[in-house]
Amino acid sequence: MYVDAKKLYDFSVKCFNQAGMSSEDAKTVTDTMIVADSRGIHSHGFLRLPIYIERIKKGFITTDTEMEVVKDQNSISVLDGKFAAGQVVGKKAMETSIEKARETGMGLSVVRNSNHFGIAAYYASMAAEQNMIGIAISNVEPLMPAIGGAEKIIGNNPIAIAAPSKEGENPIVLDMALSNVPLGKILVASTKGESIPEGWGVDRKGEPTTDPNDVKDGGFLYPVGGPKGFGLALLTEILTGVISDGQYSKNIPSMYNLEEKQSISHFMLAIDVSVFLGPENYAEKIENVISFVKDSKKAPGVEETFLPGEIEFKREEANKDQGVPMSEEVFAQLLKLSGEVNIPLNV
Amino acid sequence: MYVDAKKLYDFSVKCFNQAGMSSEDAKTVTDTMIVADSRGIHSHGFLRLPIYIERIKKGFITTDTEMEVVKDQNSISVLDGKFAAGQVVGKKAMETSIEKARETGMGLSVVRNSNHFGIAAYYASMAAEQNMIGIAISNVEPLMPAIGGAEKIIGNNPIAIAAPSKEGENPIVLDMALSNVPLGKILVASTKGESIPEGWGVDRKGEPTTDPNDVKDGGFLYPVGGPKGFGLALLTEILTGVISDGQYSKNIPSMYNLEEKQSISHFMLAIDVSVFLGPENYAEKIENVISFVKDSKKAPGVEETFLPGEIEFKREEANKDQGVPMSEEVFAQLLKLSGEVNIPLNV
Repeated sequence: MYVDAKKLYDFSVKCFNQAGMSSEDAKTVTDTMIVADSRGIHSHGFLRLPIYIERIKKGFITTDTEMEVVKDQNSISVLDGKFAAGQVVGKKAMETSIEKARETGMGLSVVRNSNHFGIAAYYASMAAEQNMIGIAISNVEPLMPAIGGAEKIIGNNPIAIAAPSKEGENPIVLDMALSNVPLGKILVASTKGESIPEGWGVDRKGEPTTDPNDVKDGGFLYPVGGPKGFGLALLTEILTGVISDGQYSKNIPSMYNLEEKQSISHFMLAIDVSVFLGPENYAEKIENVISFVKDSKKAPGVEETFLPGEIEFKREEANKDQGVPMSEEVFAQLLKLSGEVNIPLNV
Repeated sequence: MYVDAKKLYDFSVKCFNQAGMSSEDAKTVTDTMIVADSRGIHSHGFLRLPIYIERIKKGFITTDTEMEVVKDQNSISVLDGKFAAGQVVGKKAMETSIEKARETGMGLSVVRNSNHFGIAAYYASMAAEQNMIGIAISNVEPLMPAIGGAEKIIGNNPIAIAAPSKEGENPIVLDMALSNVPLGKILVASTKGESIPEGWGVDRKGEPTTDPNDVKDGGFLYPVGGPKGFGLALLTEILTGVISDGQYSKNIPSMYNLEEKQSISHFMLAIDVSVFLGPENYAEKIENVISFVKDSKKAPGVEETFLPGEIEFKREEANKDQGVPMSEEVFAQLLKLSGEVNIPLNV
């Protein structure tokens, strides 16, 4: 189903306002959810609104704190998010990196004590819109085992990298998590009674399985490419939770654990393209790269080859007229929230 | 078989010397090959010595050029490798980044007009040995198709990330290429008459296959995780060949093409850990991370879970007494080279 974007936006902002969040911050968080659902990345869309509101009410996501600059040195900032919403912290951290990059050519902010920040592409793209290459990484609660392990020790940490495209076009933006597939795909296979390819998950004992129910029932998502995804997860954990002096790995509780604060860390790097080459030179090179992908010889039955992020931007564009796509289950949860907070959702 | 390390080292240095390379540079290149073979990464070991020598003789790898500093600004350097050996250029580029990081907290060097640099871990680890996090990326000639494509448009670009470990121990170092598996694994399956899992490669038409011969005979390696590996390859191409103002993607010829120079680009980032947190604090956190991996609950039959790079360091350690491990085919090639250049290989 599709939900009117304007009405959904207003509902969401009002929910956050009522929970104590400023309108500016409420708009930031809401914007990331609109973008996520519009691009078809529903795991980071309005599915999360009820839990965000609940965590604000518990005091685990704060609405009245000021981010602290712990360190500011040349191209580097270390920030403390003071447990504000991840989207608010993430945006300010990337803004800080972009500012640094404008002054020095490159800016890196690492930030601790944040929360779930939604889609990583949002922050990496902020840099790309300023003619910079942006890299946005976050740690998350542990979801994957070590290679050969049988307990969750590491997150499927999202990594986004965005680069400016041709003038006036959407950036080239990769946004990936480090599990082979998201849990949602396992759940879909389970519902349909289908088997899953080896490598998607392991069972509760840590053994390979092609039965999605083995993964669902106490099993684990598996890192993309095995040791490659595991290695990236471990090193990005160091680049986020460890060097931000924050929390990491098994020390991070789930966002669905309603007993504890999370302390999530982000790594935001912005690299100013204009330091390296002039705008015409970059434009020419990036057009070549794009044409290598788009004009590539294709496999039988394949009509189009896509740039990183292109499919998501096309979906977003296609949804502009129809509204925000959403499952009926998620919409039902929003209606339930609407009743609880007494804010109408008249879509 | 195992080859005496000292004698192999001397042979290799003499071959490079005879071809016109300074002893210092010859030692650098030789050292990376010793390390690669000793760690079991034979694709970047002495297998490459004959082609390196041949490319030097053709003038495609230069021995008498000076790297040029094209730009030097705050934490950033842009370098021109002037077609010297990739190991020589790569090492100098990471040294430049480390120096910058010592001054400013972070250093990024991008370098164009280099050559194949061997194992990426070598350069990332240089930073880790200086209490820095190192990231080393290179582009390579195109080996993989776009998703749904049927021609080589992008390299399986190597990415290495290294972080300091406990005092006196080997760094935690991920070194991965962006194909699901290296071509060598496909060739082994072909020789053994075994099938390969879906996702390792596609046939010459770009269609999925489980027959290694389909990949071998005009087919293509496939990116790890499909769009994830492809996206990383494309964005790392931008971070190397595009912003270095060098060559990229389909413009890069194979190193086995003896008609043309290659122009390979590298991206070398060093981040000084001490800017972010004190040595005791880092040590405590990294010990926790290590224990989460090493002390993890294990799957049945699994005796040990490993850190990124740990298996390779263990192999290197084990080989210290035995010599440099090598296939008989590679050794035969070295003997052939020995005859051609008239430098004895008395191992």
